[in-house]
Amino acid sequence: MSADIKFLALGKEIPELMPPPPDLSFVSVRLAGNLVWLAGHGPNRMKKPPEFDYVGKVGRDLTKEEGYAAARLVGLNLLVSLRNGIGTLDRVKQILQVVGAVNSAPSFTAQSFVVNGCSDLLVSIFGEEGKPARMAFGASELPFNMAVEASMTVELA
Amino acid sequence: MSADIKFLALGKEIPELMPPPPDLSFVSVRLAGNLVWLAGHGPNRMKKPPEFDYVGKVGRDLTKEEGYAAARLVGLNLLVSLRNGIGTLDRVKQILQVVGAVNSAPSFTAQSFVVNGCSDLLVSIFGEEGKPARMAFGASELPFNMAVEASMTVELA
Amino acid sequence: MSADIKFLALGKEIPELMPPPPDLSFVSVRLAGNLVWLAGHGPNRMKKPPEFDYVGKVGRDLTKEEGYAAARLVGLNLLVSLRNGIGTLDRVKQILQVVGAVNSAPSFTAQSFVVNGCSDLLVSIFGEEGKPARMAFGASELPFNMAVEASMTVELA
Repeated sequence: MSADIKFLALGKEIPELMPPPPDLSFVSVRLAGNLVWLAGHGPNRMKKPPEFDYVGKVGRDLTKEEGYAAARLVGLNLLVSLRNGIGTLDRVKQILQVVGAVNSAPSFTAQSFVVNGCSDLLVSIFGEEGKPARMAFGASELPFNMAVEASMTVELA
Repeated sequence: MSADIKFLALGKEIPELMPPPPDLSFVSVRLAGNLVWLAGHGPNRMKKPPEFDYVGKVGRDLTKEEGYAAARLVGLNLLVSLRNGIGTLDRVKQILQVVGAVNSAPSFTAQSFVVNGCSDLLVSIFGEEGKPARMAFGASELPFNMAVEASMTVELA
Repeated sequence: MSADIKFLALGKEIPELMPPPPDLSFVSVRLAGNLVWLAGHGPNRMKKPPEFDYVGKVGRDLTKEEGYAAARLVGLNLLVSLRNGIGTLDRVKQILQVVGAVNSAPSFTAQSFVVNGCSDLLVSIFGEEGKPARMAFGASELPFNMAVEASMTVELA
């Protein structure tokens, strides 16, 4: 089963395409040769940026399991933007990097568990090639109080 | 009007080239093929690193409008370093990524507005190609207490 | 003396290869053409992830000199992973970027000094080509309370 078919099989779990709000001067995706840079995405499904479905600090306002769910939703939004930018996920050769910032309560140190929500999704779609060289860290604050934000770098075949 | 001419038209707003202090082991710019990586730059004009013109936490020591001005100054310093590294901004094909860290007071969540100060500048110079795939986040502390720090990745034509 | 020989001359200071724990879905190294992306690495020597030899906040639990030593150890782990991924450090053309997150106590602003621990090591191995376009910032929390985390991007010859 191809990556694109696996992704589409997620059906109603897939969020709509969420472009950046017009007053924010950035784009979701940049392509340079066979490399793709994706902007920091947030956990959107019902809400559209600058509102987010998961807000607040993981370890205080949200459990780490809710943080994981937020990171999975971030991953879904990254894939929606990527697919919109390149046409089909079957063009993905490998995920190079994910940088995941977790809006963290003081003394919360399970950022790696949280960001697994994003990279476990990538592995379910791309297999071993979906495992990023990942950097996860705790942010004291995130834009619009989103719970998790992640950017991604991808190599196309 | 070319990107380089637009930039030079900023005249006295353009800061001097500010290399890293000699006791810090990094460089401002790295070129690899047609890709350019720029170090995290700070808001310098009258002061030279490791001193900065905008210091402190946005949302407490500085307003978000001052944060925007700091981020614009960071963008100017990024462009000065880039131009020094590649000769002319007319070689820029597109801005791939900006990662902007905002020294944030507790509960300050307008990092996106602040980092617009950098990317609005890029758009004024490069048009749509100046919009980066951007990641903005709140840092609990930044080096030398600078108010905003941003790195940039660029594709050359 | 080649970079690889200089590195091996560090002898017992070189840590063992430390792959990510199996429950964390990421890899240490991704290669794309002549570019290499390395995951965020931590300060490991005696302990293996998810435990770290340097934990806590620099500026409170650790001095800045201990932070420097932690960052050097992070750099050693990055080089061990890189060497494992590409065979020999003699293939390195230049270090493009290091992103260093320092687990920072409130009002600690010497992140640049701390991350020098990593980039001074790189310079000792690769000379001027080892100086990265670097971004250092303060994280409010880091995974498993590690004291310093850094990722790296490299160009191969």
